[in-house]
Amino acid sequence: MRSNRLHTLLLATLLAFFSATSRNTIASDRPNVLVILVDDLGYGDLSCYGAEDMRTPHMDQLMQRGVRLNEFYANCPVCSPTRASLLSGRYPDRVGVPGVIRTHAGDNWGFLDPSAILLSELFQRNEYHTALVGKWHLGLESPNTPTERGFDTFHGFLGDMMDDYYHHQRHGHHYMRKNKEVIHPKGHATDLFAQWANSFLLEQALQEEPFLLYLAFNAPHTPIQPPKSWLHRVKAREDGISHKRASLVALIEHLDAAIGSVLQTLDRTKLSENTIVAFASDNGGQLNVGARCGPLRGGKQDMYEGGIKVPACVLWPSRISPGQTSNQRLLTMDLYPTLCEAADIEISHTIEGVSFLPMLLGKEQEWPQRDLVWMRREGNMRYQGRDYYALRRGPWKLVQNSPFMPYELYHLEKDPMEATNQAHKETKVYRELVRALQYHVQQGGKVAWQSPR
Amino acid sequence: MRSNRLHTLLLATLLAFFSATSRNTIASDRPNVLVILVDDLGYGDLSCYGAEDMRTPHMDQLMQRGVRLNEFYANCPVCSPTRASLLSGRYPDRVGVPGVIRTHAGDNWGFLDPSAILLSELFQRNEYHTALVGKWHLGLESPNTPTERGFDTFHGFLGDMMDDYYHHQRHGHHYMRKNKEVIHPKGHATDLFAQWANSFLLEQALQEEPFLLYLAFNAPHTPIQPPKSWLHRVKAREDGISHKRASLVALIEHLDAAIGSVLQTLDRTKLSENTIVAFASDNGGQLNVGARCGPLRGGKQDMYEGGIKVPACVLWPSRISPGQTSNQRLLTMDLYPTLCEAADIEISHTIEGVSFLPMLLGKEQEWPQRDLVWMRREGNMRYQGRDYYALRRGPWKLVQNSPFMPYELYHLEKDPMEATNQAHKETKVYRELVRALQYHVQQGGKVAWQSPR
Repeated sequence: MRSNRLHTLLLATLLAFFSATSRNTIASDRPNVLVILVDDLGYGDLSCYGAEDMRTPHMDQLMQRGVRLNEFYANCPVCSPTRASLLSGRYPDRVGVPGVIRTHAGDNWGFLDPSAILLSELFQRNEYHTALVGKWHLGLESPNTPTERGFDTFHGFLGDMMDDYYHHQRHGHHYMRKNKEVIHPKGHATDLFAQWANSFLLEQALQEEPFLLYLAFNAPHTPIQPPKSWLHRVKAREDGISHKRASLVALIEHLDAAIGSVLQTLDRTKLSENTIVAFASDNGGQLNVGARCGPLRGGKQDMYEGGIKVPACVLWPSRISPGQTSNQRLLTMDLYPTLCEAADIEISHTIEGVSFLPMLLGKEQEWPQRDLVWMRREGNMRYQGRDYYALRRGPWKLVQNSPFMPYELYHLEKDPMEATNQAHKETKVYRELVRALQYHVQQGGKVAWQSPR
Repeated sequence: MRSNRLHTLLLATLLAFFSATSRNTIASDRPNVLVILVDDLGYGDLSCYGAEDMRTPHMDQLMQRGVRLNEFYANCPVCSPTRASLLSGRYPDRVGVPGVIRTHAGDNWGFLDPSAILLSELFQRNEYHTALVGKWHLGLESPNTPTERGFDTFHGFLGDMMDDYYHHQRHGHHYMRKNKEVIHPKGHATDLFAQWANSFLLEQALQEEPFLLYLAFNAPHTPIQPPKSWLHRVKAREDGISHKRASLVALIEHLDAAIGSVLQTLDRTKLSENTIVAFASDNGGQLNVGARCGPLRGGKQDMYEGGIKVPACVLWPSRISPGQTSNQRLLTMDLYPTLCEAADIEISHTIEGVSFLPMLLGKEQEWPQRDLVWMRREGNMRYQGRDYYALRRGPWKLVQNSPFMPYELYHLEKDPMEATNQAHKETKVYRELVRALQYHVQQGGKVAWQSPR
């Protein structure tokens, strides 16, 4: 505990200093970038998304401080592929990550294309300080560790999840790293990541150059393991709440406080004014641990809306007016060009993501006619190593919720719960969407998704 | 016609010379290799495979002159993947060719891995004269044209098929080549390929070094277009035969004669004694044009036995005793290491194919316990760009005949017609085979199957 107290003391001292001035904000008008990714947070699991048994003031406030994105979709209903899209600006199957990357080779469904140009690499080349704090999940070894893929510093863990929020191991492996060094920190992962992010921000406030901080919390992913005091508080407050739901609520509230501390650091260092913050979940909530995905069908792993539609917002106090919402349909990969454009970083390679910065800045933006596509590959007896897909065009969604199902067709405007399959009725639409999806499947064949070794 | 007569005259003169001596057979004891691949010939479509309305004396004789392989399987129920396996010794999805390579990008389901080491490349490095006569079907442009992939000479066509056996075009493209030169030869493709093969053999008989000739006829692939006189002969001979069936029978008989002429050249140049000849079909017969696949379920495109079990044999007069049969279960890719071993060419990279040369030579051969796997990817409304699979282990076969079907399980010894699905009864076997197949699917992820461009 002593180190925690010292840390708090140091933080207070530094904050006192920065409340006077912040060199970073003065020296450069290139914005800092903070991406906050949370893990398995469902579309219904924030107070401001309708969760009445939950108090998430900091994330609620985040949503208020810029543009809340009501139609933001994760690129995939599971973890690694969405992260690959965030960092590459591309569909997951265009960068070799159709499924979850895992410890055991037989259960590993992705290999990040070494030739993909990551957001971190672009920002690093453009003289940003780049850091990843928290969950990487895009490779356990060379060439795909964070410091090899554009992050100046990495303080977090490599793996897909932790088997325990306090010992941080996965399948008996220690995946916590400070850059390349194996570390054994003490504490709840959410607290650690917030501390490490705060430390990074304090350092950055002293720097001339802007930063890119990718802060990837593993909460509220399983195991649903909030600090005990947080669980007690929720149980005491919420009459009749189940232990299961209370645990998840507490884990999310604890996460909310951690995010609050980071936002506070941003504010008190005066970094926040010129820091663009993007916040999103990597996929929908996991229903069987009590998560809620709002009024949507399905949850994590599902190609139905609950698996892919997620809470998200972007703020940039000096440029984006607060209190806005947008119903523009977006994907995780759109953040890549958006953040690059904000940082005036040119993209000269092919990506599928589309910048929505003009919209954020309140400018007229012409939207491309585009289909949105989701795909995932997974092992086990349900998926058997095969891939499954969804495609959205206008109000129509073609969707297959497991590899062996025929495609279903839903009209999401008339049928947001995806209840009435129109595949056999709207055959023209069905055929057009199947053809479009076939094209996507084919393009995915350009990239291997297992290590050649 | 004049050039044909001249050709015949030249052939006769040269043969008279070679009937005295053949330098090749004296100078080297490394065998020549002749691979004859025919296109869409079903398991029931030779006289010696039970076709009573057909006369195929030359292929019948071929089967008699070495070891007839009763349990030989094409690596795929369609064309390009099997050819990729033949030339790489690997499963098609391990070399980027899960489906048919075609003219139009949107309908193209393979891109031969430029790093795959082809049979032609290995033989070329080992100072064999290497030639492809006939159908390539593994790429229409650089880096995947025959002369870039190990063939000293190429005399044939690049495409997936011809829209006409006489004008040789496909989708209006001229794909006939002499090496890299576009050519416009006159005549039925089967006759041309036999002539070109014969010319090559005559040249080779004068050489010190041995040769690898890959002779890939496009007959009896569609269009079912035999020379008219051949069709008339069949109709006159076979009472009550349908026009459809008669056309196919005639196309196969015409092919048989062409193969006969090549075998005759081998014999008369005395090359045959030390030439190992491998003969096979690339997949099962196409049922809707009158093909027959013997007492098997399904045909071309199907993962059922009719789609993949094909006529095949290997002969090598100086080393392999004639008149043998083998029921060893083999795949096209096994020819690669078999032919390499026969030619004393070492393979120092990974392949899945297993040499069956010892068995051919009458030696004891221990067989690896191995699963056989088939996969294919295809476009159009039935397949929608997706892949489908089969796996054989012992008597059991797990099979999916289109991408959206659940796997079926058959006991092929008790149920050779694949009539009684045991997936729900033999759940332990089912699960084991699904797991094995999942591993194969995953390994396929190591290789891209579309050009990166």
